[in-house]
Amino acid sequence: MKNVIGAVCTICGKMTEANPNTTVCPACGGILDIAYDYDYIKSKVTKEDMASRNDNSMWRYREFLPVEETTAAPKLRVGWSPFYKADNLAKYLGIDTLYIKDDGINPTASLKDRASSMAVAKAIEAGKDTIACSSTGNAASSLAGNSAAMGLKTYIFVPERAPIGKVAQLKTFGATVISVKGNYEDTFRISAEAIDRWGWYNRNAAINPYLMEGKKTVALEIAEQLNWKMTDYVAISVGDGCTIGGVWKGFKDLYAAGFIDKLPKIISVQAALCCPINTAAAAGTLEWSPMPEDTIADSIAVGVPRNPVKAIRAVLESGGITVNVTDDEIYEAMRILGRTSGVFAEPAGAAGTAGVKKAIEQGLIPKDASIVSVVTGNGLKDVNNAIKAAGQPLHVAPDMDALLEAFAEIGDPHK
Amino acid sequence: MKNVIGAVCTICGKMTEANPNTTVCPACGGILDIAYDYDYIKSKVTKEDMASRNDNSMWRYREFLPVEETTAAPKLRVGWSPFYKADNLAKYLGIDTLYIKDDGINPTASLKDRASSMAVAKAIEAGKDTIACSSTGNAASSLAGNSAAMGLKTYIFVPERAPIGKVAQLKTFGATVISVKGNYEDTFRISAEAIDRWGWYNRNAAINPYLMEGKKTVALEIAEQLNWKMTDYVAISVGDGCTIGGVWKGFKDLYAAGFIDKLPKIISVQAALCCPINTAAAAGTLEWSPMPEDTIADSIAVGVPRNPVKAIRAVLESGGITVNVTDDEIYEAMRILGRTSGVFAEPAGAAGTAGVKKAIEQGLIPKDASIVSVVTGNGLKDVNNAIKAAGQPLHVAPDMDALLEAFAEIGDPHK
Repeated sequence: MKNVIGAVCTICGKMTEANPNTTVCPACGGILDIAYDYDYIKSKVTKEDMASRNDNSMWRYREFLPVEETTAAPKLRVGWSPFYKADNLAKYLGIDTLYIKDDGINPTASLKDRASSMAVAKAIEAGKDTIACSSTGNAASSLAGNSAAMGLKTYIFVPERAPIGKVAQLKTFGATVISVKGNYEDTFRISAEAIDRWGWYNRNAAINPYLMEGKKTVALEIAEQLNWKMTDYVAISVGDGCTIGGVWKGFKDLYAAGFIDKLPKIISVQAALCCPINTAAAAGTLEWSPMPEDTIADSIAVGVPRNPVKAIRAVLESGGITVNVTDDEIYEAMRILGRTSGVFAEPAGAAGTAGVKKAIEQGLIPKDASIVSVVTGNGLKDVNNAIKAAGQPLHVAPDMDALLEAFAEIGDPHK
Repeated sequence: MKNVIGAVCTICGKMTEANPNTTVCPACGGILDIAYDYDYIKSKVTKEDMASRNDNSMWRYREFLPVEETTAAPKLRVGWSPFYKADNLAKYLGIDTLYIKDDGINPTASLKDRASSMAVAKAIEAGKDTIACSSTGNAASSLAGNSAAMGLKTYIFVPERAPIGKVAQLKTFGATVISVKGNYEDTFRISAEAIDRWGWYNRNAAINPYLMEGKKTVALEIAEQLNWKMTDYVAISVGDGCTIGGVWKGFKDLYAAGFIDKLPKIISVQAALCCPINTAAAAGTLEWSPMPEDTIADSIAVGVPRNPVKAIRAVLESGGITVNVTDDEIYEAMRILGRTSGVFAEPAGAAGTAGVKKAIEQGLIPKDASIVSVVTGNGLKDVNNAIKAAGQPLHVAPDMDALLEAFAEIGDPHK
């Protein structure tokens, strides 16, 4: 990889060689960060080159990605998701400029596809034919889908409480799904043992430094879709910290390579009752404490985050802000995203927008600021919560009088 | 509309003026077809122009679409869906060349977004601020989503049996959803009365000739994604006949404008117990008979098709073939699409691929033919059927011996 210098430990700062099997720091066990030769990148690609590319996927940013030049992009078309100027929603929130990045429009319907596409590329570089992870959610389904398209086998370990809908998605993609009679910790332990025993490729965002490099492509796209003129803020929901870390890494890489001349402030949004990262970031410290996982937004219900350091640094380095939102505020954000913008988000996907609304109400963001809100997953992933958010239809008998009466009751002008 | 000559009746052949409120033939009540000035189109756009466009939506084909030059494209990014060379699946089916067009990757997760994007554009041209339809499915949710993004109001009439998940999607998009205490006929009747009374824009694919022009963009994309070298066959699932009609119209428009030099044969796939269009087409007649709606593929469970003439002609004019598939064959297609290609389809979305498999087995398609199979909707739309298709996970206690035993039972090599 001519564009990669190595992998730097986020804890002890030591530089390590970056090979396809690289995981954590060999010196201290800390999480690694891929380090690039920005002069090399600058010599290979310009903003103008980018504009002429017709690769409508995250792989259009190959010079910024930690893969060999000869590594083929995996087959599923991940990324280059829609980017909307959300004028209706901006007006509703009383601000000037708001954009929505809808990452629910991805092959398996979440931002996690970006990490899984990278995982598949690196597994192939490592000569592996099998990838494994333990997860109940979007990471698992995106891994299974992206692997299937490349003919790789997947072993997915889920705790027995995993929702049957997600299991169905995994099974459809042909994963061997092992439902572990135990909790998440049991599941993780047996998966680690199996990965070790059979030498499968390990797709685990916190210990595999390449996955965050996949996730960072959402930031690269936002910048290009803004024609490289960055907004003041970018809002994102936060669970284990890998996604917000990836977003910040993406902007920093672009800044270092001279593609943008301003870094946005990161708005870190967590659930009010499950916000270990925000609590630490708000106190300006890397020291965090575990919390219970009490929120309907399952994708960010992480009481013991696996990547707290990169996440907290994203807030602190960017001069960003933290916002914690209640479940009711998340439901409200699901409704306003749908009604003003035609975007259907899962709860964690809408949480970023809930955070934007709350930050504006609390006066944390000036009304004339420009903001991007990232939607991280599709509402079809969690229809039960959509039902709770959206309310009931009118029930009417099939005649005009009944219809007029129903309209009158809800104050509809058609009466 | 300088590119449009008028609207021709598919029954009596009379030409009518095409204005935004045009519905059926004023002379005989037949369904209309938009007629273009192909010389004008040729003078305005070339294949080379197309390649340089960075509009990654169906609106990149503006010269082929029946809108005023000044009409803005609606906001949701509809179309330019992924197109995959499906080598794993081709190998599995024992054929040389197969492509998958995945239209489940659209803002509301189905091909219907193409018709709804067009409906919204025409409603705005007509000066309407409200659109209505009666439907329980993908047409309704796509209309609600595309309208919300443009600030248009929607009234959606659903029969009371409508699945709550789809109602939730509609309500999230802010539609006024009227659940009618009655069957689909009652629902349609009261919706027609309301549309009449309040002058709402009517989104009904069979009587509104513009909607099929939206749907045809899937064919335009397939041709461009094939670099204008058409395959021998294009397979699509068929319900009321509007989608297959649109697909065929798209290819005919491209052929007439000189963008492709060969028309594909259309493979029309219906459910074995609900196949009125295929039954007529196979007999070489436009005369069809109603059938019961007995299939798990709800989006094509149409016993009384609203657009049979265009659908049957698509098969007959193209020299195409008809294939009827059982529910089990549809479930199997869902599994093989997922496992070989990482594509998650709803039952009607997988039916086209089930038809390809069956046609190959029956020797209706030569092994060296090239085929495109269109996936019309996302599996997340119908998780219950995905569960039925995909099977159960392995249930194991959290220790290695239990895992080895479970692997041995399913014949997994990891034992």
